[in-house]
Amino acid sequence: MNYETPLFFRVMKYADAAGHDVIDMVSGNPDWEPPEALREGLHEYADFEPDRFQYAPSEGLLELREEIAARRGVDVDQVVVTNGTGEANYLAMARALERERGDEILLTDPVYPYYPGKTTMLGGTQRYVATDDEGGLDPADVRAAASEETAAIVVTTPNNPTGAVYSAETMRDLVGVAEEYDAILISDEVYDHYDLSGRFSSALETDSANRIVTNGFSKSMAITGARVGYAIFPPALVADAKSRHMLVNVATTRPGQYAVLNALRETGPDYYERNRDLLRERVDTFTDALDAAGAEYTRPSGSFYVMARFDGYPGTIANVERLIDEAGVAGMPGDAFGDSRTEWLRFALVTPRVAEAAERLAAYFD
Amino acid sequence: MNYETPLFFRVMKYADAAGHDVIDMVSGNPDWEPPEALREGLHEYADFEPDRFQYAPSEGLLELREEIAARRGVDVDQVVVTNGTGEANYLAMARALERERGDEILLTDPVYPYYPGKTTMLGGTQRYVATDDEGGLDPADVRAAASEETAAIVVTTPNNPTGAVYSAETMRDLVGVAEEYDAILISDEVYDHYDLSGRFSSALETDSANRIVTNGFSKSMAITGARVGYAIFPPALVADAKSRHMLVNVATTRPGQYAVLNALRETGPDYYERNRDLLRERVDTFTDALDAAGAEYTRPSGSFYVMARFDGYPGTIANVERLIDEAGVAGMPGDAFGDSRTEWLRFALVTPRVAEAAERLAAYFD
Repeated sequence: MNYETPLFFRVMKYADAAGHDVIDMVSGNPDWEPPEALREGLHEYADFEPDRFQYAPSEGLLELREEIAARRGVDVDQVVVTNGTGEANYLAMARALERERGDEILLTDPVYPYYPGKTTMLGGTQRYVATDDEGGLDPADVRAAASEETAAIVVTTPNNPTGAVYSAETMRDLVGVAEEYDAILISDEVYDHYDLSGRFSSALETDSANRIVTNGFSKSMAITGARVGYAIFPPALVADAKSRHMLVNVATTRPGQYAVLNALRETGPDYYERNRDLLRERVDTFTDALDAAGAEYTRPSGSFYVMARFDGYPGTIANVERLIDEAGVAGMPGDAFGDSRTEWLRFALVTPRVAEAAERLAAYFD
Repeated sequence: MNYETPLFFRVMKYADAAGHDVIDMVSGNPDWEPPEALREGLHEYADFEPDRFQYAPSEGLLELREEIAARRGVDVDQVVVTNGTGEANYLAMARALERERGDEILLTDPVYPYYPGKTTMLGGTQRYVATDDEGGLDPADVRAAASEETAAIVVTTPNNPTGAVYSAETMRDLVGVAEEYDAILISDEVYDHYDLSGRFSSALETDSANRIVTNGFSKSMAITGARVGYAIFPPALVADAKSRHMLVNVATTRPGQYAVLNALRETGPDYYERNRDLLRERVDTFTDALDAAGAEYTRPSGSFYVMARFDGYPGTIANVERLIDEAGVAGMPGDAFGDSRTEWLRFALVTPRVAEAAERLAAYFD
């Protein structure tokens, strides 16, 4: 099987091996502090009795599922705790495909590259819906691409890589398209705490038997390495998803679940607000330098990313490696995210050296 | 899709809800201490800088893979760190099936019930090979069942549920059968540290492009909840397995990997020997009481389990629930492990109350 695996780890390896100072703007790994209560949760866990070191329930620690259900306004039975949002998306897409209503997955262009990779692995086929220059998605375009072959429509809001945040109306319409074709809307909302626009709207706001919401704590708590995420399924779809989770992973890591539970309970809104403020500052710094360099770019309404375009410097892996070697800045090639962004590069604003990176880029492209 | 999910969690739930004192001998959750260095590793991790809270490399922390490779005598590139041995087995079986040399998975009867569940989920079909009364597997029987349709042969040594430990000759012959039919021998060796016979032999001792070995730290370090395992692939099969791991789980939990690495480095052989001694004592206590109760049983050469048979009390889920209600002892129904053990019950010796459980059973069946 010829998998299409995302390039993130390859680019990071190249940057690590460069042998000179490189500012890492490749992957969506926050550089800010996890909540203090997350650290405390791990310390507490480390001293527990042996029985707490054993399997959590396969579907997740009950207290964590209850906490998630209460915050998201769903029934606790709908919640499955997963090995990060990555597994949540895998379960959701597998569940949509095994309904055997079709084997096509509608994705946006540009796209987060794990989705097409998962589609191929699961035996599905990809069909892409174009977004506008700012990453905006028109539900009418999704409707036009949908058919009896559509198993799922996968969207991300706030979006990676474009930074777009879909409106409440868009989300409602997307659920509507899924219902019309008896497909599943899968809404990946892992960046929900990094909505910089105030306009974020969850797919959960439209109750439906045709939507699955995935999320996790990797981004909101700056712990991509912990691997704690979740999916919220419609009642009719949850049992088989739990079974697949059990058969693939048995259960999700328990120290991680405990630490996240502790952090959810003990962390106030100021923690999240502080991280958004930091991100806003970095967006300003970075885009000011891009203006100075005469680059085209999209200003994100949410998530961690700025897509930028430099004249005569297409977004290929070769150019990304050249930028690492010659400018000391590592980004992601736009063509990793689909045909519409082959001229672009993606920069993740998850380094304290955003200003320095911007200067390096401005100098390099001067 | 009609998944066949293992009954473990269902039985545990029933026991929890019983409302009276029940001795839990359901699942293979050690009740002894994890290594002290495992706890210390978690404490250390909890105080790391934010960058250590981010994604580990998808294939696993390099230092952990190196430590595993050195101990197992394989190349570090062959090692993939997984979300427990459960994911390792899933990756191995998926990898065997996607070679498209056939869709049949040879399993033993009795069988660890996750294997048939994974087989169905992955679109394969099960074919069972009988074992003898003590759980011994004759490679000639495996050869007789193998055909051009055989994608993989999955074995467990030390065995769950029978406690059998396969000889070096058996392991060599099993690799031979896999090579003969260009199938993959998948050897699940998660109980290797609980070989009570001194006769354990790893499939790694026979070098071959046709065998995958799976293992993990859940049992050896008494941390089933941490979810850190690994698979060792032949060089030609490892790349696609790493891709599937990345597409399903992105990466394995980092605090768990770090804590296991610390424990691997700092824990001497006395820790493992102490746990084996404890288990030997419990086997004696439990089987003495079974003798007194006039039950038939298999004395394990390894792993945590005793299969026992009480006259006129077949190993059904109904009888397991009755035993919980009337005797206050929770085991697993033999029929969950295959057709050959429908008369039997499985008891996991992972409770300090083994003697009390044995007395309860002796009194109940008196």
